[in-house]
Amino acid sequence: MGEIGEGTVPRVDLRRAIATRSGGFLLFAVTPPRLTTSPEEAAEIGRVTVERLRSVPIDGLVLYDIDDESARTPDERPFPFLPTMDPADYLTRHLAGLEVPAIVYRAVGKYREDRLRSWLGQQVPSRALAVFVGSSSHDGAALTSLARAHELRDEVQPGLPLGGVAISERHARRGDEHLRLIAKQRAGCSFFITQIVYDVNAAKDLISDYHHECAAQDLAPVPIVLSFSVCGSLRTLEFLRWLGVAVPRWIENELRHADDTLEASSEQACAMAVDLIAFCRRLGVPFGLNVESVSIRRVEIDAAMRLAARLGSELRR
Amino acid sequence: MGEIGEGTVPRVDLRRAIATRSGGFLLFAVTPPRLTTSPEEAAEIGRVTVERLRSVPIDGLVLYDIDDESARTPDERPFPFLPTMDPADYLTRHLAGLEVPAIVYRAVGKYREDRLRSWLGQQVPSRALAVFVGSSSHDGAALTSLARAHELRDEVQPGLPLGGVAISERHARRGDEHLRLIAKQRAGCSFFITQIVYDVNAAKDLISDYHHECAAQDLAPVPIVLSFSVCGSLRTLEFLRWLGVAVPRWIENELRHADDTLEASSEQACAMAVDLIAFCRRLGVPFGLNVESVSIRRVEIDAAMRLAARLGSELRR
Repeated sequence: MGEIGEGTVPRVDLRRAIATRSGGFLLFAVTPPRLTTSPEEAAEIGRVTVERLRSVPIDGLVLYDIDDESARTPDERPFPFLPTMDPADYLTRHLAGLEVPAIVYRAVGKYREDRLRSWLGQQVPSRALAVFVGSSSHDGAALTSLARAHELRDEVQPGLPLGGVAISERHARRGDEHLRLIAKQRAGCSFFITQIVYDVNAAKDLISDYHHECAAQDLAPVPIVLSFSVCGSLRTLEFLRWLGVAVPRWIENELRHADDTLEASSEQACAMAVDLIAFCRRLGVPFGLNVESVSIRRVEIDAAMRLAARLGSELRR
Repeated sequence: MGEIGEGTVPRVDLRRAIATRSGGFLLFAVTPPRLTTSPEEAAEIGRVTVERLRSVPIDGLVLYDIDDESARTPDERPFPFLPTMDPADYLTRHLAGLEVPAIVYRAVGKYREDRLRSWLGQQVPSRALAVFVGSSSHDGAALTSLARAHELRDEVQPGLPLGGVAISERHARRGDEHLRLIAKQRAGCSFFITQIVYDVNAAKDLISDYHHECAAQDLAPVPIVLSFSVCGSLRTLEFLRWLGVAVPRWIENELRHADDTLEASSEQACAMAVDLIAFCRRLGVPFGLNVESVSIRRVEIDAAMRLAARLGSELRR
């Protein structure tokens, strides 16, 4: 019998944990390389990513699909928008060695219906998972609406496990995000992934309202995947804010005055995750955890991986 | 040597804990009887209050001064406004047996300057403590402004320990409550008492901003007394909201769906207090705790006393 290393800790079967609505899984999320990256560089980035993720006990990898969100806000983007590779292409071409399932985001507004249809047709429902994201702006520039994307998936690939996004900040503003989640669930979503959580109260408000509305409608709640990130600099914090993440004032103060911002943000994220794990367990709402690496700085990626390892332990407690 | 009961646990010297800015004390807050109460009934209420508070390890009693706040909000008051006895009169006449110091609130807008001046003149600075509250409305009906009340105290009774109110909800709206606290501190306040806390993030935002602003101004922070209450019914919750207390949606849901609302709210309050105690200790902000009994129902008063006993233990950990 050899020693049991982190890589051999039994992993949760992601597809099964979603299908049975049991949750309890850990995801890690990355953004594909920039479009301007050469195929050789992209292959190297993919190889390194797969290699490094082996040491983290994750049950799935999330691949974001970045839309140019500049239509959404008149604020200047603190980081320039650089188009990234299609996450589905990146997965197929450069992440072949990945040992865990991938959840591919599709910013559906970016794609014409025929392209989305053909992508759906190519998926193997027993291997792929996807998350559809509607267009964030209402300027009519969306090539395909979220509702239409749901119909296409129903028609072309009904067995494909499909997730949706859950935004606590929208719930804080409008108070109806739980109803949106239930509508998406009725349209076929079997899990949700939140935006990065920095406001625990806002996340609890959404989870609580979702839980009680499901009970009222006699509907079983599906796993809500809570996303966390580390934040190594005030610039990253500014970027999170720009993305629409509500960062409470006191957390901003802590990060601003910390000797080690990265370490402080990691402690914050861990404390928030522990609080929300206990909350979800008490309510009986299935959940997963997701650690996003929002910066491309090596030191932040490393810290995100350490955070994922810690959250993995919390999840298995 | 007799057994050590709760009543004999060494108490914090409230005046000293305020003067040395060390905090660490526990208060209990009550509202005086209604003005329509007969002297005999008021005496009996006072006797019972003193008697029952002996079993709770408090370091001071807060006596509220209720102002008719109907000018503040156009909403209908869910509980009728019934004028209450002057807390200073109630203390003098009916709480003679009280074994702990009393902090008397003065809603300064209710009193003409000469009355406030004569009350100040009667105080014994080595025994009395007070909190001045400004008028909550801006309709010009205030007989004395908060700034003028501070001047009077400076002039007539500068040795009287004076507190101010700290409102996290106002900080959430305007973002300058920490500056108001510092201004009140410069005007003579040596402690602050918060409105009842149900939104931990809002309380942390205020404490954090106050802490960092004190550091920036090279000012030693004074104790912030965090107030908690139990809530035995949705009607009490409605009343708290009307008073301006921000109750997060998820807490409302928990109370609404709890088998035992009173017990659930007590658990909530205790969890929030534990969280905020750790937060204040980490920042090095001195603090105290205060348990308010907002309802006159016997079962809620008993639960508030049990909460105070629990928080006393947490404080001494």
